[in-house]
Amino acid sequence: MKQTNLITLTTDFGYADPFAGQIKGAILRRNSSARIIDLTHGIEPHNILGGAVTIRASYHYFPHGTVHMVVVDPGVGTQRKIITMKADDHVFIAPDNGALTLIMRDKNIQAVHRVANRSLFPSEVSATFHGRDIMAPVAAALAGGMTLDQVGPAITMQECVQLDIPRTQLDENGITGRVISIDRFGNIRTTITSANISSYQPASFAGIFIGSHQINAISATYGDRPAGALLALIDSAGHLEIAVNRGNAAALTGCRIGDPVSVLMDREKE
Amino acid sequence: MKQTNLITLTTDFGYADPFAGQIKGAILRRNSSARIIDLTHGIEPHNILGGAVTIRASYHYFPHGTVHMVVVDPGVGTQRKIITMKADDHVFIAPDNGALTLIMRDKNIQAVHRVANRSLFPSEVSATFHGRDIMAPVAAALAGGMTLDQVGPAITMQECVQLDIPRTQLDENGITGRVISIDRFGNIRTTITSANISSYQPASFAGIFIGSHQINAISATYGDRPAGALLALIDSAGHLEIAVNRGNAAALTGCRIGDPVSVLMDREKE
Amino acid sequence: MKQTNLITLTTDFGYADPFAGQIKGAILRRNSSARIIDLTHGIEPHNILGGAVTIRASYHYFPHGTVHMVVVDPGVGTQRKIITMKADDHVFIAPDNGALTLIMRDKNIQAVHRVANRSLFPSEVSATFHGRDIMAPVAAALAGGMTLDQVGPAITMQECVQLDIPRTQLDENGITGRVISIDRFGNIRTTITSANISSYQPASFAGIFIGSHQINAISATYGDRPAGALLALIDSAGHLEIAVNRGNAAALTGCRIGDPVSVLMDREKE
Repeated sequence: MKQTNLITLTTDFGYADPFAGQIKGAILRRNSSARIIDLTHGIEPHNILGGAVTIRASYHYFPHGTVHMVVVDPGVGTQRKIITMKADDHVFIAPDNGALTLIMRDKNIQAVHRVANRSLFPSEVSATFHGRDIMAPVAAALAGGMTLDQVGPAITMQECVQLDIPRTQLDENGITGRVISIDRFGNIRTTITSANISSYQPASFAGIFIGSHQINAISATYGDRPAGALLALIDSAGHLEIAVNRGNAAALTGCRIGDPVSVLMDREKE
Repeated sequence: MKQTNLITLTTDFGYADPFAGQIKGAILRRNSSARIIDLTHGIEPHNILGGAVTIRASYHYFPHGTVHMVVVDPGVGTQRKIITMKADDHVFIAPDNGALTLIMRDKNIQAVHRVANRSLFPSEVSATFHGRDIMAPVAAALAGGMTLDQVGPAITMQECVQLDIPRTQLDENGITGRVISIDRFGNIRTTITSANISSYQPASFAGIFIGSHQINAISATYGDRPAGALLALIDSAGHLEIAVNRGNAAALTGCRIGDPVSVLMDREKE
Repeated sequence: MKQTNLITLTTDFGYADPFAGQIKGAILRRNSSARIIDLTHGIEPHNILGGAVTIRASYHYFPHGTVHMVVVDPGVGTQRKIITMKADDHVFIAPDNGALTLIMRDKNIQAVHRVANRSLFPSEVSATFHGRDIMAPVAAALAGGMTLDQVGPAITMQECVQLDIPRTQLDENGITGRVISIDRFGNIRTTITSANISSYQPASFAGIFIGSHQINAISATYGDRPAGALLALIDSAGHLEIAVNRGNAAALTGCRIGDPVSVLMDREKE
């Protein structure tokens, strides 16, 4: 695998505390030529699902060989293990709490290892900050060319925690999905993909339903509808998104993560 | 032009979502030695003027040859074009929505080109995230030494959208400007420059007026006035700033962006 | 000292304004191969103590030779000097306002110099942004190998401002400390260290008191107590921390920075 010496960080540390900065120090002390990219430190505290959605939506924009750290770790210091995984020619490292669920579900997993090689850890490991004391030096070593074999024993995906994330349902009446994330602009991303929609005849499309709102067409982009209008489109990740042109769809609809969204199909029309 | 491989980012993406991180991935995938600097991702959503003020106030602190991306793009996916521009030996790339207005107004423009070379884009371009899918790979290529000619055809500044930003007015009674930005400390930057003020005789200075407040002198720095006192000074960008020593001038005065500020001159005194 | 060309930034500039970005530009213009790491820009405006706590808790995770800038500077432009300091094989630069107090107190200081070499400054130095106009180019030069001698004359620690930060008190009844920081998760860090606690017999431990709350044991990690339970542990910096498993201890206790925390010892039990 190509060695890029790139490491991305996805955490729930926020921007006021120096925790992400300390992780960067711990990486650079081990591997002074590592290049560290903030994916985000704005995951809601302890929101493992938020971390899982973010890394799934983002890792593949980076070069092959990039190491991705996901540090959302409410169970730090307990018996939960730390895992490193290779998938789609990227490397991941995270607590074994489900943060990698969506990659395990969607991608061809090339290897999963338990992080166990204590020679990589500093002499003192805290009980409450394994992101800095364990994951950072291991990520630094992996980015520098160390193989997963050298980090710890191979395990199976079945030995890992996976979140029970609702799957999109397709039947003869249409598609039922969920709100999976809401961004800064109030745009509502759903679990429904363009591929889900393409599996029906275009002529059968009868409407999108979210909360008490109905949307009658799928637009190409925000500007196709008047300012303030609720609309649906295929977003930049290939998912069905509910938005408001120059407005905030989450505020308009009152929707929250996990709420149902449906695309109804009318078989009479086919 | 010196090649620095430096790219700055100015966006309205905030810090909770992974959009800025995805842009960094898209840059590094195209140009693995690019160095990416966050100027800010805290522009208010869709506030093109905020982006215009920020890039004008900041680009020149970077080395010549730096590529500056400004991604405040409410019109993404519509017919609005994307432009790249060379000015003051820096390179800029932004949607054609006025984000570069203040540089076009104040600086000698060396070249403006329409981004059109599709061979630089990935095979799939989303309709809603051109910052990642178009501007990032083009910025990566420009930072790596590609010329503007290779990105698309030359156009004129007159073919570009420019914001109608009020200009500072000077007449025999003094100067009338506007609040142009308010920072985290509540310091109020105005459109009035030290050059505007120097164009009058110092002896004629009669006072600064903002909202219902009057300030009778221009201080050298915050600490020249007691804690809590409203004051005026020439700020680090050479603009007239209204501030409170160890306090918040925006909160004290209730001022907002766009509000008028005036410097009165007394011709009797000259 | 090893030259790393690494510079960390700790400021109260926040993330909405381009001030931290302008500092990065000013560094790179002077030293194009410098690598800049954000420790945090989220220090509360003008909170020098917050900067002092952050840099003390974080600098040592970086490689030896790293240059650490601390820019919390309410006195900018007044007669306050700017200092650079070498301690623990790291280099620091900050306004002389107490931001380096905790390093001066705890570490062996190898050198302190006043920043005075004007040939390092740009031709125009603003009165209100010395972080960008003085500290940035000096930090860039130091990271590139310049010695402290070349930056200005040696001074003594006694010539520098130090904050009067309350020290932890130990007596026969136990330990009295203070809340020193509260993080994003609501975890409460105190001035009390594990070394303070180890100086008593374990058998004599009688309880931890914070506000109206009593905690009867020191846990190893968050997950040792049920979700929602108030607990105490030794945190990742070796300090006594009050926390709530999967909850927010600051919200639960109403504690604020500076509040007293005590560990009582029962001499009868020894």
